[in-house]
Amino acid sequence: MFPETGTGSLSVAPAATAVFTAVLTEGPLSRVTLARRLGLSSAAVTKAARPLIDMGYLHELAATERTGPGAGRPASPLAIRSDREFFVGVKITADELIGVVCDLGARVRAAAHRPLTDTGVEAVLTELGRLVDELLDGPDDYRQRTRRLGLAVSGDVDRSTGLVRYSPFLRWHNVRLRERASLLTGLSVTVENDVKALTAAEHWFGEGVGVESFALVTVGTGIGCGLVVNGRLVSGAHGVAGEVGHIGIDATGPSCHCGGRGCVESIAGTHAIVEQARDRTGRSDLTIDDAVALARAGDERVTAVFARAGNAIGTGIAAVANLVGPARIVVSGEGLAVYDLFEPHIRAGFERQAFGAAAQCPLSIRPLPFEEWARGAAAVSIQSLVVS
Amino acid sequence: MFPETGTGSLSVAPAATAVFTAVLTEGPLSRVTLARRLGLSSAAVTKAARPLIDMGYLHELAATERTGPGAGRPASPLAIRSDREFFVGVKITADELIGVVCDLGARVRAAAHRPLTDTGVEAVLTELGRLVDELLDGPDDYRQRTRRLGLAVSGDVDRSTGLVRYSPFLRWHNVRLRERASLLTGLSVTVENDVKALTAAEHWFGEGVGVESFALVTVGTGIGCGLVVNGRLVSGAHGVAGEVGHIGIDATGPSCHCGGRGCVESIAGTHAIVEQARDRTGRSDLTIDDAVALARAGDERVTAVFARAGNAIGTGIAAVANLVGPARIVVSGEGLAVYDLFEPHIRAGFERQAFGAAAQCPLSIRPLPFEEWARGAAAVSIQSLVVS
Ligand SMILES: [Zn+2]
Ligand SMILES: [Zn+2]
Repeated sequence: MFPETGTGSLSVAPAATAVFTAVLTEGPLSRVTLARRLGLSSAAVTKAARPLIDMGYLHELAATERTGPGAGRPASPLAIRSDREFFVGVKITADELIGVVCDLGARVRAAAHRPLTDTGVEAVLTELGRLVDELLDGPDDYRQRTRRLGLAVSGDVDRSTGLVRYSPFLRWHNVRLRERASLLTGLSVTVENDVKALTAAEHWFGEGVGVESFALVTVGTGIGCGLVVNGRLVSGAHGVAGEVGHIGIDATGPSCHCGGRGCVESIAGTHAIVEQARDRTGRSDLTIDDAVALARAGDERVTAVFARAGNAIGTGIAAVANLVGPARIVVSGEGLAVYDLFEPHIRAGFERQAFGAAAQCPLSIRPLPFEEWARGAAAVSIQSLVVS
Repeated sequence: MFPETGTGSLSVAPAATAVFTAVLTEGPLSRVTLARRLGLSSAAVTKAARPLIDMGYLHELAATERTGPGAGRPASPLAIRSDREFFVGVKITADELIGVVCDLGARVRAAAHRPLTDTGVEAVLTELGRLVDELLDGPDDYRQRTRRLGLAVSGDVDRSTGLVRYSPFLRWHNVRLRERASLLTGLSVTVENDVKALTAAEHWFGEGVGVESFALVTVGTGIGCGLVVNGRLVSGAHGVAGEVGHIGIDATGPSCHCGGRGCVESIAGTHAIVEQARDRTGRSDLTIDDAVALARAGDERVTAVFARAGNAIGTGIAAVANLVGPARIVVSGEGLAVYDLFEPHIRAGFERQAFGAAAQCPLSIRPLPFEEWARGAAAVSIQSLVVS
């Protein structure tokens, strides 16, 4: 139907990349708007868009009559053709693989899960192959238009080489995941840290669109943060960035597994909440589900644990706002399945500790369906179409 | 001697700006190195450098014979002509004006102070006029080659308009300082927040040269931070950034004037140190000098106050490293005149709280001579030659 483009980044001129990225993330956009925004002439935009239209990635919407000053030639906005190509995204956790098929606009078209009983690399790859086949050969046959696979893994991941340096939950060290998954599936693979992948999804297809800076804070077993500053993901000169979970916010708080004291995660991570709830209730077998049930039933010993945790998260988020001043902050993660227990305390901690105008930074506090992590992996794969 | 360039930014092509900035901050550099670094052809570098040489900003150093592979045509590195133009920088504090004359390479050539008895705008401007005259008409006559004045003020400053929105120490609200100072001195004026000005000086002429990211933390009455991430100063979408002083690091710590609890500044700012030393010694008239003297004499009640303060600063700096992962961090400020009392505790707090590889971030902990603030103001003025 359309010419093949191979599995590398699209081989088009820099202006075409700029046009495609703008339409992909903020479109539909008229050529006039594109020209103004990108500092190009209208003719240059038309020239840049041509190969993208020929390859089927962009198309012109029906012309709409312009009115008002400068009205004349009707504007035909450029839009992406979302079903031009599909992308598989998979989040690898310690107990399951979560996979989705997304279209070019990062909309989830299909989802599937596979349980993992073994986190060894071979076992995970075997299940990954099955999951990808299930997604691509399912009732809707996506295989023909899918050439890319994005993988998201928690831990220390080198996106540029696709190496998983260290993933504590999987107990992986130096796994060449990109290479292995490419050989297995025949797809072009990107590998990214899971929080960074979610941040990429928000940056290109979510609340981060069109802002110079924003932060995504994830709450769960770990407490992480993806940061975009001056329009680019912050990755840290020494490989560490966004570790909001290990900011020390309580000088007399508990010891943290990282060696620090009173870290946000040592107070508000899932394990920390369970520990504190066990301490306070004297029930050494209490689970997180028990703790949630007790808190919802109004047990003050346990509501206090969630209050302290929410406050710690809010204080950590305020540190993000005070230091880098993002345009907006999204707070999400599996921990926010119990949104109601956290939300007022997160806001209270944030408002107390945000400095001056930093308190104006809008917080979106919302639960995160597990498929979103897989969608994040797919979003990184979509980015790889444009940015190598 | 050289053609006049006016008081706006240099009117040269973008490539010339890039060449000039590179030579200014990292020079001398050969054309070959410049071409490689800027992604230009050698011919384009030569063309870009021509007007800068004609205007006297750049010159060619004597050719050095190249040896080794590729040796042949001798390389003539490009360097700035540091005495081509001079820049006045003035830091405005509540009790004095500190002024310097810097050359194009940000080297301090002359310095002068004037006490202030009145922080009203008119009084400050009168003294500013006298200080600038004293600097420019002194034994070395700098007036002929000086067209720019940089001013640094603590508080909320809009560099783009030269408006001082709010400066608590001066009790200024919405002062059009750039306009007033331009009329007064006939110079082209830039106005910047003092911590950001110092950060600019480090970024272009200090430890921040050639790194994508770094942080400058200032310790004194206030505790501030300038951040460069992805090569650009972080200014905060809501006008707040770098407020390391108001990160909450002690959930049961003292109330802070900002409304927060256990902020770094509420434990480690100069006032906080004096308060704590008064509390512990029962001497309600104790000054900061008394506290320093007691600590140096080994009074454990007061050494503990400095230890806690240093730890708080170290925890705040670790938050910077954990979140944005700068290549290096400079810790400076008038508070570090008592470097010996702080330094080990700052390092201990940092090392405890820095997460994983973030602990590899080099810390330079050093006192800051007061003229450095004025040099920062001059550095912003030098930047305005290149970046409007
Ligand atoms: Zn920790
Ligand atoms: Zn505060």
